[in-house]
Amino acid sequence: MTNALKNRQYVFAARPEDQATAARFGLVETDLPEPETGQILCRNLWLSVDPYLRLKMHDRESYTPPLQIGEAIPGTSVAQVVTSTDPAFQAGDLVAIAGGWQEYAVVKASGAQRVDPALSRPESWLGALGMTGFTAYGGLISIGQPKAGETVVVSAAGGAVGSLVGQIARQMGCRVVGIAGGPEKCRRTVERFGFDACVDYRATNFPEALADACPNGIDVYFENVGGRVSAAAMPLLNMFARVPVCGLISQYDGQSGTDPNALEEFMRWVLVRRLTLRGFIVYDLYKNHPEFTQTMAGWLRDGKIREEFNLHQGFDQVVPAFLSMLKGKSFGKTLVQIAEPV
Amino acid sequence: MTNALKNRQYVFAARPEDQATAARFGLVETDLPEPETGQILCRNLWLSVDPYLRLKMHDRESYTPPLQIGEAIPGTSVAQVVTSTDPAFQAGDLVAIAGGWQEYAVVKASGAQRVDPALSRPESWLGALGMTGFTAYGGLISIGQPKAGETVVVSAAGGAVGSLVGQIARQMGCRVVGIAGGPEKCRRTVERFGFDACVDYRATNFPEALADACPNGIDVYFENVGGRVSAAAMPLLNMFARVPVCGLISQYDGQSGTDPNALEEFMRWVLVRRLTLRGFIVYDLYKNHPEFTQTMAGWLRDGKIREEFNLHQGFDQVVPAFLSMLKGKSFGKTLVQIAEPV
Repeated sequence: MTNALKNRQYVFAARPEDQATAARFGLVETDLPEPETGQILCRNLWLSVDPYLRLKMHDRESYTPPLQIGEAIPGTSVAQVVTSTDPAFQAGDLVAIAGGWQEYAVVKASGAQRVDPALSRPESWLGALGMTGFTAYGGLISIGQPKAGETVVVSAAGGAVGSLVGQIARQMGCRVVGIAGGPEKCRRTVERFGFDACVDYRATNFPEALADACPNGIDVYFENVGGRVSAAAMPLLNMFARVPVCGLISQYDGQSGTDPNALEEFMRWVLVRRLTLRGFIVYDLYKNHPEFTQTMAGWLRDGKIREEFNLHQGFDQVVPAFLSMLKGKSFGKTLVQIAEPV
Repeated sequence: MTNALKNRQYVFAARPEDQATAARFGLVETDLPEPETGQILCRNLWLSVDPYLRLKMHDRESYTPPLQIGEAIPGTSVAQVVTSTDPAFQAGDLVAIAGGWQEYAVVKASGAQRVDPALSRPESWLGALGMTGFTAYGGLISIGQPKAGETVVVSAAGGAVGSLVGQIARQMGCRVVGIAGGPEKCRRTVERFGFDACVDYRATNFPEALADACPNGIDVYFENVGGRVSAAAMPLLNMFARVPVCGLISQYDGQSGTDPNALEEFMRWVLVRRLTLRGFIVYDLYKNHPEFTQTMAGWLRDGKIREEFNLHQGFDQVVPAFLSMLKGKSFGKTLVQIAEPV
């Protein structure tokens, strides 16, 4: 049975050959089903725009199968319940769901997370309290295993995950050095997120500047970028350093390597420095950290961790917001608000 | 105070520019000091010849500082005590020591390991019961973490460490696939060490043959080689696979990479397959495995693990044995017997 509401939805229109463009997305109008037992019908309010989506646009295996042409674009959202068939939720409740890039979504109630306004503002469920925050927290703690006094380096430091990684590492007593693109982003990373230093990877002296910022070497390198950014970090890694591999944004949108000896050199570092690398995605680590939501909400409340949102307004801004983030033009967590809560 | 004995010793004569040759080694005659309190004077009987030495011949950091020109060549040996100043050892005792490539050595008694003939033959202290065996055992168990039914792939499978890794993995109920150079070495790896299969990396269809031998993918890839051998294993790694990085013999002696995208491709696998890589050397893992000697001695005694020695005879054969091993001509653990026990 369909609902009287009309829904607009972004779909995957064509696979990018090199860099993603707006033409790779289509907009369709769909009918909405009535929620079946155990489902809720929600109106999306804030949509999350995440780099991993670009990885799903390649026609090759990533975490999950590649997006198929015509498929609805997935993503998390904070939404408001319109109709519920589940006693756990009522109309008007705010929830974090896998809502997709669309105006409305029908999802299982069991997969919805209640947004508790007493803990933080609703957007935080897409930021520090959501998948973004858990990726930073779980990856840093479970894989990076930082100890007080160690040096933690974070690439894409001005980004959604990177900015949180650095702030969490500061809470753990580490020296925190960011890597970001451009002097302005570096300045803001230090000022707003309290990094000890932030180095501009576009500067000609980038490898030397990174070495200068890490006089005691690097104990944890939180990898969001890959390519020449990680190539500069690698020789600075200390014995027994840990490298959580969270993302490789330099690869996602049409860039590629140029050094024929890069892999050999890299493996040599792994061996002689006895490094540990581990790729992960957020789902791998949830069970390790039942304390996450309370801990992070406490840090937010006490002002120890600061969220920065790169907030766009309007359903027509979803694709431009995504493309702008891929080009490194965003700072903090990119969100698009498409409706007001009622 | 010097001893009446004369000692012959191999020293590092010149740094190889590409491949190592005999001209890189010199032979000198030295006086021997009398052992001081807590030291023992030993006569070397069997010298161990190990690939890691080639890594120390480069003028760049490896596990330890590079060899300096004129420096004595290090290595483990099984030796017989000539004079002891320590009550723990008497003349005639067999010991495993850091004896170096020389006829006699004066070492600290506290660093000598007693060779117990009740457990195994003396050569085993340079093989399955020595650093070689512990490297295989500790690396596989602590880092590889194989579970029964999983597929373990070992490169340099006919070598000292690789042949033991495969046999230990078989004891743990795994399917074991080796990678080795040439059909003869592959055949012997299956016949003598009980591998389920062994694939020839020199064959033109090597990547396909490896895939065929691993119908359920790879859960543990024990890395001894690097380069195109690991490039073939990487795409076969299963989700959450583990890669103990023990050695990179393809790099040690003048070879290099050719694929400009190799590192990017590799990092992509680490991320999307959520791989764990960890470089290690044997010293990192000793404390994890106090059971090692008894367990391995039991396997040897019960015929569950077989040692194969590539035994050379005579002090003048030390350098040729090393060069031959680097060229992949050896099978099993390379040793040189330079004297008989008395």
